[in-house]
Amino acid sequence: MSLIGKRCTEYIELSEIGCALKNNNTTSYGSTQLVEDSVNFLTSYTSTLSSQQGVNTVTSSINEPRKTHVPKHIPDEKILSGKYESLDYDIVENDLFEEMLKNNTNKDYIKTEFLRWLIMGMIGVLTGLVACFIDVCVIQTTQLKFEYIKDYIATCLESFCLEVPLLIWICCNAFLILIGSFLTAKFAPVASGSGIPQIKCFLNGVKVPHVVRLKTIVIKIVGVICAVSGGLIVGKEGPMIHSGAVIAAGISQGKSSTFLFDFKIFEMFRSDHEKRDFVSGGAAAGVSAAFGAPVGGVLFSLEEGASFWNQALTWRIFFASMLSTFTLNVVQSFVKGHPLDLSSPGLFNFGKFETTTYGGLEIPIFILMGIVGGLLGALFNHINCKLTIFRRKYITKVYLQVLEAVIVALCTGTAFYVCLYFDNDCQVMESSESQENGIQFFCADGKFSSMASVMFRSPEESVKSLFHDLPETYQPTTLILYCSMCFFLALWTYGLFVPSGLFIPSLLIGAGWGRLVAILLHYISPTAKWVTFEKYALLGAAAQLGGIVRMTISLTVIIMEASGNITFGLPVMIVLMVAKWVGDIFNEGIYDMHIHMQGVPLVGWEPSSMLSTKRASEVMSHPVTVFRTKETVGRIIDVLKSETHNGFPVVEDYDPFVEQSFQDEAESFGTYKGVILRSQLIVLLKMKAFEEHEDVQAVKSVLNIKDFRDAYPRFIPIHQINISPHEREFTIDLQPYMNPGAYTVSHNSSFPRIFRLFRALGLRHLVVVNENNKVIGMVTRKDLARYRISSHFGNVQIDELYISQS
Amino acid sequence: MSLIGKRCTEYIELSEIGCALKNNNTTSYGSTQLVEDSVNFLTSYTSTLSSQQGVNTVTSSINEPRKTHVPKHIPDEKILSGKYESLDYDIVENDLFEEMLKNNTNKDYIKTEFLRWLIMGMIGVLTGLVACFIDVCVIQTTQLKFEYIKDYIATCLESFCLEVPLLIWICCNAFLILIGSFLTAKFAPVASGSGIPQIKCFLNGVKVPHVVRLKTIVIKIVGVICAVSGGLIVGKEGPMIHSGAVIAAGISQGKSSTFLFDFKIFEMFRSDHEKRDFVSGGAAAGVSAAFGAPVGGVLFSLEEGASFWNQALTWRIFFASMLSTFTLNVVQSFVKGHPLDLSSPGLFNFGKFETTTYGGLEIPIFILMGIVGGLLGALFNHINCKLTIFRRKYITKVYLQVLEAVIVALCTGTAFYVCLYFDNDCQVMESSESQENGIQFFCADGKFSSMASVMFRSPEESVKSLFHDLPETYQPTTLILYCSMCFFLALWTYGLFVPSGLFIPSLLIGAGWGRLVAILLHYISPTAKWVTFEKYALLGAAAQLGGIVRMTISLTVIIMEASGNITFGLPVMIVLMVAKWVGDIFNEGIYDMHIHMQGVPLVGWEPSSMLSTKRASEVMSHPVTVFRTKETVGRIIDVLKSETHNGFPVVEDYDPFVEQSFQDEAESFGTYKGVILRSQLIVLLKMKAFEEHEDVQAVKSVLNIKDFRDAYPRFIPIHQINISPHEREFTIDLQPYMNPGAYTVSHNSSFPRIFRLFRALGLRHLVVVNENNKVIGMVTRKDLARYRISSHFGNVQIDELYISQS
Repeated sequence: MSLIGKRCTEYIELSEIGCALKNNNTTSYGSTQLVEDSVNFLTSYTSTLSSQQGVNTVTSSINEPRKTHVPKHIPDEKILSGKYESLDYDIVENDLFEEMLKNNTNKDYIKTEFLRWLIMGMIGVLTGLVACFIDVCVIQTTQLKFEYIKDYIATCLESFCLEVPLLIWICCNAFLILIGSFLTAKFAPVASGSGIPQIKCFLNGVKVPHVVRLKTIVIKIVGVICAVSGGLIVGKEGPMIHSGAVIAAGISQGKSSTFLFDFKIFEMFRSDHEKRDFVSGGAAAGVSAAFGAPVGGVLFSLEEGASFWNQALTWRIFFASMLSTFTLNVVQSFVKGHPLDLSSPGLFNFGKFETTTYGGLEIPIFILMGIVGGLLGALFNHINCKLTIFRRKYITKVYLQVLEAVIVALCTGTAFYVCLYFDNDCQVMESSESQENGIQFFCADGKFSSMASVMFRSPEESVKSLFHDLPETYQPTTLILYCSMCFFLALWTYGLFVPSGLFIPSLLIGAGWGRLVAILLHYISPTAKWVTFEKYALLGAAAQLGGIVRMTISLTVIIMEASGNITFGLPVMIVLMVAKWVGDIFNEGIYDMHIHMQGVPLVGWEPSSMLSTKRASEVMSHPVTVFRTKETVGRIIDVLKSETHNGFPVVEDYDPFVEQSFQDEAESFGTYKGVILRSQLIVLLKMKAFEEHEDVQAVKSVLNIKDFRDAYPRFIPIHQINISPHEREFTIDLQPYMNPGAYTVSHNSSFPRIFRLFRALGLRHLVVVNENNKVIGMVTRKDLARYRISSHFGNVQIDELYISQS
Repeated sequence: MSLIGKRCTEYIELSEIGCALKNNNTTSYGSTQLVEDSVNFLTSYTSTLSSQQGVNTVTSSINEPRKTHVPKHIPDEKILSGKYESLDYDIVENDLFEEMLKNNTNKDYIKTEFLRWLIMGMIGVLTGLVACFIDVCVIQTTQLKFEYIKDYIATCLESFCLEVPLLIWICCNAFLILIGSFLTAKFAPVASGSGIPQIKCFLNGVKVPHVVRLKTIVIKIVGVICAVSGGLIVGKEGPMIHSGAVIAAGISQGKSSTFLFDFKIFEMFRSDHEKRDFVSGGAAAGVSAAFGAPVGGVLFSLEEGASFWNQALTWRIFFASMLSTFTLNVVQSFVKGHPLDLSSPGLFNFGKFETTTYGGLEIPIFILMGIVGGLLGALFNHINCKLTIFRRKYITKVYLQVLEAVIVALCTGTAFYVCLYFDNDCQVMESSESQENGIQFFCADGKFSSMASVMFRSPEESVKSLFHDLPETYQPTTLILYCSMCFFLALWTYGLFVPSGLFIPSLLIGAGWGRLVAILLHYISPTAKWVTFEKYALLGAAAQLGGIVRMTISLTVIIMEASGNITFGLPVMIVLMVAKWVGDIFNEGIYDMHIHMQGVPLVGWEPSSMLSTKRASEVMSHPVTVFRTKETVGRIIDVLKSETHNGFPVVEDYDPFVEQSFQDEAESFGTYKGVILRSQLIVLLKMKAFEEHEDVQAVKSVLNIKDFRDAYPRFIPIHQINISPHEREFTIDLQPYMNPGAYTVSHNSSFPRIFRLFRALGLRHLVVVNENNKVIGMVTRKDLARYRISSHFGNVQIDELYISQS
C-alpha cells in the first residue's frame, strides 16, 4: 500500500526533473481494475460502464503515473478519485477542421447560429413543461393523501383511534419513499440528492458518469414526486436544475444513447464544447423554472460553470431561462384556472412582500442573523459530512439504502405527529381563507392548530406561511420545536437515495428562526414599527440557505427574484455574505463538501496565492507517453491497451524504444508537434486509416470530421478493435488529425498562470515544454485539483491529496 | 503615401515568413511625430502627453512595423489608430514577484483581501453620493429656471409679449450650455458624451488617455449638470457610469497624478490588473446609481469588460453596486423629506407599473415593435455617424465646438417653444396632482397644455409621464411631433462637446412611439383590455434603446430593475433581441460605432468564424526587436529611443548586430526566454541596475517590486534618463526582471485560438514561436483588432484596417 510515483514537491531545476519520479514508473501503468462499489452516485457507474466499455472503465484523465492504493489511514476527504474524466472544451483545430471551415459558407454559419437559438428555446420550453408536470403530480398526490387522512382524523378525534390515521399516513409516506428510493438506488444513484453538485461538476468540466442520461431524468422526476409527496423535508427545486441540464444535453445531441436512437440532427453540436454550452442553458432554465428567477438562473450557470464570459452564449442562456419561466407561467395559469394571468413565474416563489423598507439601524441585526446562519449552516454541513462518511462505509447495498430512506420517512411522519400531539398552539381562525386552510385538529371550534397547518402542507406552502402569516400564528415554542425538528430531519434526509432539494428545507429552518428573531425584537421593543415578521423570516431563510450552500451573487439574485422584491437586495446580500464568511471559517458549502468527498477533481475559482511559487515542473505529471508524427499501428494499440490516458503529445525526434532515462539529461520526449486524443486514435484505428508504407499520405482524405463526430460521445473501447498482426506494422500519419495549436506552457510557468490558462480556456490537458520546445511533462485537471486549500479557524494550509485508482 | 509593411495575407509556410515584410521595415520604425488635432476625445491626449512624455507619446502597442501614412481615399472607419496603448492584465511573475510572494504571510493575504472589499465599498458609497449631488444640482437649477419663466409666461400671455420669456428662457439655456461646453472642449474633451464608449474601451483593455483622471470627473459632473439643466435632450445616467469608473480608479490608486499627491496607501493595487478590476466595480456602481439596478450594473460590467468570470471579483462588484444604490437611496430619502423610506433606489426609475401581465398573442406585436426600434435605431446611428465624420473634419477648434453646442441649445429651446405655440393639445386637469404639475399655458382654465408639460419638465420626468399618464393625456399629433423632434435633436446632440447620456433621449423617443402603438391598437380594437399604455410605452422605449445601443442581457436587466417589474422580462428581452438583430443588419451599436470611428483597437467578443483559417504566422507582426538575457545598456537605450514598442522578448543565442535576413532561413530571433516591458527597462535604467562586468549578478537584490510599483502608471520617458557614455558599455542581466512564463503560441496556431487566449487572459502581447521555441513574431491587440467583420444586408465580409501612426 505504498504511495507510488509521489512527485518531488521541492523546487527543482530542469536538470533535476524526475528526481523522485524514476522509481516505480512502470508499475503505475497498471492494467484495468474493476472499481469497487461505493454508496454515492458513482456506484452504478463502474458496473454499467465496465460492461459497456471494458478497459476504458477506469480511464482517468491523462498521463497520471500516480495511481495508487491509498493507505487506510488516509481519510476520504484527502483522496482524489482517479476515475473521473474531464470534458474537453478546447477545439481540435486539425486539418480536417480547417477543411470543414473552408467548405462552410456564410449560410452554414447562419444556420448553425439559428439552430443554437432554436435548441436553447426548446430547452427552455421543455424545462418549463417538466417543472409543471412535477408540480401538478406533487400537488395531486399530496392532496389525495391529505384529504384521506383529514377525514380519518376528524372521525378518530371523537372515537379515540388516533393511532389508525397515524399509521395509515405514515405507511402512505413510507410506500412512496420506498418506490422513489428503490428506483434511485437501483437504477440511477446519480439521480439522488439535489443534482446541483453533479451539475456543478459537469459545468466545471468533469464528466460525471450518467449524469445527463435519459434514464437519470426519468428516475429523477418520478423520485422527486415520490419524495416530496412522501412527506420528506425536501424540495423539488434542486432536482429541477438537474432536470434542465439533462434536457439540454439530450436535445442538443439529437440522439439518445440509452434508447439507441439517433435523429441525425444537430450533429455539429456533438462535442464537449457545444454540449457544455447547452447544459449551462439547461441549468439556468431549471433555476428559472424552480424560482421564477431567469436572471438568477443565468448567474447560477455563470457562477458554477462559466470559465469565460461569452456575450452571445450568455444571451442565449438568458433566452432559455426566460422561455422556461414563461412556459411554466402560461401552463400554470391554465392549470390554476385563470389563463393569461401569468402570475406564477416559478414552481415556488416567496409570495408578495408588503414590507419593502428597512432602516440603516437594522443592518447590525442583519449581520447578527448572518452569523447565526453561518454557524447553523456550518453545523449542518459538519454533521451531514460525518453522516455521509458513515453511509459510504456501511450503507453500501441497495436494500440498506432503501431501508434507510424508508426509516427516515417513518421517523419524519412520526416526529410530526408526535409534535402535533403535544403541541397545543391553537389559533383563532380569522379570515375565511384561514378557515379553508387551517386544520382544527385538537383545537376548539373556530380555532386551528398551527403545527398541523405546517405539517400537512407541502414544504413550499409552509415556507410561504412562515413568511407571511400573521405574527400571532406561531408561538415561540412551536417555532423552536418545528425549527429544530426540521434541522435534524433535513440533515438526515440530504444524502439519502432519493432525489431531494436542499433549498426548501433550508428556507424552512431559516424562516422559522427568522420569525423567532422578529418575536424577540418585538419583545424587546414592542412599539418598533420596523419589526415586520416577513422581513425577518425572509432574511433568516436567506441566512440559513447561505450558511449551508455558500453561494454568492446568484443566490442573492434568486432570492430577490423569488421574493419579487428588489429593495431587499442589500440586506439579503449582507446576510449571505456574512453567513458565507462565518461558515467558511469552519468548513465548505455542502455541495462542495459532497463533491470533495467523492474525490471529484473540481477546479476552483482562483489559484490560491499560497501556491503562487509552485512551477509547472513541480506540478506536472512525468514521464509522458508520446507518439511520433508517423506512428506504427502496433505501438498505438499497445499504448492504448496498457495505459488509461486520454491525450498524448505528438512529437518528432524521439525514439520510444530507447530507455528513457538514458536518452536525455533532462528527460525530454521529443520536439512538440501537437496533441492527439485517445478518442481520435480509436476512430483512426477503427476506420483503418493507416497505410502500409510510411510515405503515403493519400489516406488522410478518406476521413472527415463527421467520422469523429458520429463516434461522440461513447467511443468503443480499444479491445473491441480488431487489428491483424500484419496491420500492426502499418503506419498512421498523425499530423492531419492532431491538434497542432494545442496550448503549451513553459516548464518555469507558475502554478497560478497554468491554473488561469486551464480555467479560462476549459482545458483537459496541457503539455509542458522546456526551452527548446521539447515535451517534458503534462498537466491535467487532477494535477491542479490535488492541491486543496483548507482553512480551519483562520489557519490556512495546503493539503496535497492522494490520487486513488478508483 | 504608400502602405508600408502590409503583410502577406495568404497562407504561408514557415520558410516563407516575411515574404512581403522585408521591404521598408526600417522606415516604419520612424521617430516620434506629433499627432494632429482631432475633434474627438483624443484631441487633448496627444498635446498633453507629448509635453509630459516626449517620445513615449505615440507609443503604440508593441512591435508594429505597419505604421503608415494613410492614403486620403481611406475613410476614417477603415483606419485603426496607432496611438492607443493597451492595459496589461497579465501579471509579471518574475523573480522579484516570487520573492514578494515568499515574504507574504497569511496575514498579508487577508489584509489585501480586506482592503479590496473596503475600496469597493468606498467606491459604491462615493458613487452614490456623486449621483445624489448631480441630481440635487440639476433639480435646483431646473426649478429655478422654470419658476422664473413660468411667472413670466403667465404675465405675457395676457400682455402678448411671449417673445420676451422665450428669449430669456433660451438665453438661460444657452448660457448653461456655453459653460458646460467650453469646460469640456477646452479642458477635458474625453468627458464629452456619455462616457460609456470610453469605459467600454478601458474595460476591454485599451488605455484611453485621461479617461480616469480627476480633472475629467470634475468637468464631467459640472458639464452634465449644465447640459441637463440647459434643456438639451440628454440624460445624466451615462455620465454617472463614467463618474463611477473615475472614482474607482482614483480611490484604488490612493494618489492623484493631477494634483501630485500620494497617500501612500493601496500601493499593492498599482497595476493595470488591479485597477481594471476596481474600474469594473465603479462602472457597475454607476449603473446601479443611475437606474437603481445593482444586478444590471454587475451585468453591464461583465458584458462590457469581463474577459474571465471571477467569482470573488463579481461578488465585490456586486457589493459596490449595492452600496451605491443604498447610499443614493438613503440620501435621496433625506433630501425628499421622508427619511428611511428608501423608495428611490436610482437617479431614475421608471415608476410603478400597474400592468404586469401580457398575453401570448401580444408577442407578434412586440416583435414588430422590436423591428421598428431596430430600424429607427439604425437610422439614428447612421445619421449620427455621418454627423460625427463631419464634425471630425470641420469642427476642430474649441470655439467652433462651443458654438455648435450653443446653437443646439438655442435650436432645442426654440423648437420646443414653437411646438408649444402651434400645438393645441389641451387636457382637462383631473386630479390635484395634475393641477400641480400641469401647465396651463395657452389652454383654458382647468386645462393644461400637454406639450408644455413635457417641455418644461426634466427629461426623466417626461419619460415617466409618457409611461404612466392617462391615455387621453397625449394626442397622437402631439406624440408624433414630439417624437420626431426629440429624434432629430437627440441625434444632433450626441457627439457635442458636452457630457450627455443617450439613455434618456432614447427612452423619450421610444416611449413616445410606444404610446402611439397603444393608441393605434386601441383604435383597431377599442375593447381590448390588454392594451395598456404603460406596457407599450415601456416596450417602445426598450425597443428604441436596444436599436440604438444594441446591448443585450445587461440592458434587459437594467430595464427590469428600473421598472421594478420582473414579469416584463420576456417581452423586454424579445424586443431587445429583435431590435438588435434588425439594427445589426445595417450598422453597429452607437457606442461601437464611435469607438471604431476613433480607430480604437477594441477586441470583440468572439473571433469571427470567417477568420478561423488564419494562422499565427499570418497575423503576427514581424520582424521582432529582441533583447538578449544580458544586454548592454547602450543597446537598450538605443532601442527604447528609436522604437515605440512596449514589450520585448528576451532571448538567448541571438546576435542583434548580424543582419537579420541572413541569419536564419526562417528569420527567427533567438530562443525565447521571457518578456520584458518598456516600463521595467526604464526603471532599471533610472535606478542604474547595471554592472560593469557581465558576470556580476549581485545587483539584482538592490531592486524590489516596490520600485516598479512606485513608478506606476506614468513612467518617465526614455530621453529624460541620463546615461554616461561609459555606462553604455555596462550590462544588465534581464533574467530576474523579465516574465519567464509569459504566454507564447506556436506559429501554426489558428486565429480564434490566439484570440481566445488574448481575450480570456487580457494579454497585451503574445510572442509567436516556431517549433524550436525561437521567437518569430509578436501578436498585439492591434493585430487582432485590425480584422473587422462588417455585415451589410447579410453580406458579411472581412475588412483589413489600416493602422495609422496617429
